[in-house]
Amino acid sequence: MTKKELLYEGKAKRLFTTDEPNLLIAEFKDDLTAFNGEKHSQEAGKGALNNKISTELFKLLENAGIPTHFVDRPDDNHMVVKKVDIILIEVVVRNIATGSLSKRLGIEDGTKLPFTLVEFYYKRDDLGDPIINDEHCLILDLIKSESDLEELKRLGREINTILKAFFAKKGLNLVDFKVEFGYDSEGNILLADEISPDSCRFWDMETNEKLDKDRFRQGLGNVKVAYEEVLKRILGEDK
Amino acid sequence: MTKKELLYEGKAKRLFTTDEPNLLIAEFKDDLTAFNGEKHSQEAGKGALNNKISTELFKLLENAGIPTHFVDRPDDNHMVVKKVDIILIEVVVRNIATGSLSKRLGIEDGTKLPFTLVEFYYKRDDLGDPIINDEHCLILDLIKSESDLEELKRLGREINTILKAFFAKKGLNLVDFKVEFGYDSEGNILLADEISPDSCRFWDMETNEKLDKDRFRQGLGNVKVAYEEVLKRILGEDK
Repeated sequence: MTKKELLYEGKAKRLFTTDEPNLLIAEFKDDLTAFNGEKHSQEAGKGALNNKISTELFKLLENAGIPTHFVDRPDDNHMVVKKVDIILIEVVVRNIATGSLSKRLGIEDGTKLPFTLVEFYYKRDDLGDPIINDEHCLILDLIKSESDLEELKRLGREINTILKAFFAKKGLNLVDFKVEFGYDSEGNILLADEISPDSCRFWDMETNEKLDKDRFRQGLGNVKVAYEEVLKRILGEDK
Repeated sequence: MTKKELLYEGKAKRLFTTDEPNLLIAEFKDDLTAFNGEKHSQEAGKGALNNKISTELFKLLENAGIPTHFVDRPDDNHMVVKKVDIILIEVVVRNIATGSLSKRLGIEDGTKLPFTLVEFYYKRDDLGDPIINDEHCLILDLIKSESDLEELKRLGREINTILKAFFAKKGLNLVDFKVEFGYDSEGNILLADEISPDSCRFWDMETNEKLDKDRFRQGLGNVKVAYEEVLKRILGEDK
């Protein structure tokens, strides 16, 4: 399968059409961005790492009953995916307060939340991806129905349950993550985008070391080493 | 009834204890603030106007079945109210997009919303009153139960229905408003704080002239004239 037209270029991926109308090719870039693109860098090999990590996690989730857009990983930097209309709602699922949640609401960094929190953000770079509530999603016409919105929450929590248990066995705390969904041609909701250290926060269970994009956001260094460690844990034996 | 100890001083009101343990006296100040206190001014007579306007609207709402903290207005700047534990959730109800909603979500100023929008903000000046979703309210322990949270939404919508119809007869469009609630000693939820041109947006139905605190926020002048006009419409004949 070969790339045809560039359909969309995001901060971390390019999407191409293929000969198959219902399939696209995602190219994982080495770019790292943070703070809505204000901080920008490149890290050779980051794209391939995220592609490998996402592939493993999409397979894990599919096996656990979560419908995803994943089809194949033909080479290091490319993933074949089902074509979906992306829902412009970023679904953020949090187990521990950190980052923007701590700052915005004055919750001490590292506080374990009393229950798994689901937040929606409006996927609009030009507006800085503002946080929104359920009614905003409907007013902005971002989703077909209230029940689909509930389905996003249910899927977010279900993905959290699966990934949190998986990473616990690998010695990693799943702190929070962002996922995106899309409608396929039949109106089904599929998990799309990627699941990687760009979109998740992982803290080592023993040392609390950060093994995710916060290393870049906070200038902690060793970004690629951390991403490699996450892949190694995913592929390695349970602890 | 006389004021005893100062219990709390807010941007627009002071609250005093009285001889009655379940009653407080609210003193309406002439201060005008906007943008989380960054803009500040005084307007002689503004406090008395808001006290009179709030009194009329609390009575209207009580008669329509909304429980409020209002007891009496003994003089120009004072209101006797039932003592409540304020719920730290500002309930914002919107019929037309303007202000922060338009800016944050890119909705054109003046757009009629497809349905009445209810938003929650965390009442925390030091954090700039950030917008929050239902789950944040529970995680931050701002409310006793999920059903009480639903009750805040129901009350917000009900108040909107009553006030919107009332002001329409006075030639005013109720664009949006902010209300606060509290628990009384028996755990009942009462409408508290104030309802005034400081906390509502009113647009003249014919001219679209703003008759509320936006005159101050946007430096349009004639703030007191506008508040006087709102009181005049409330007390005057239906149009």
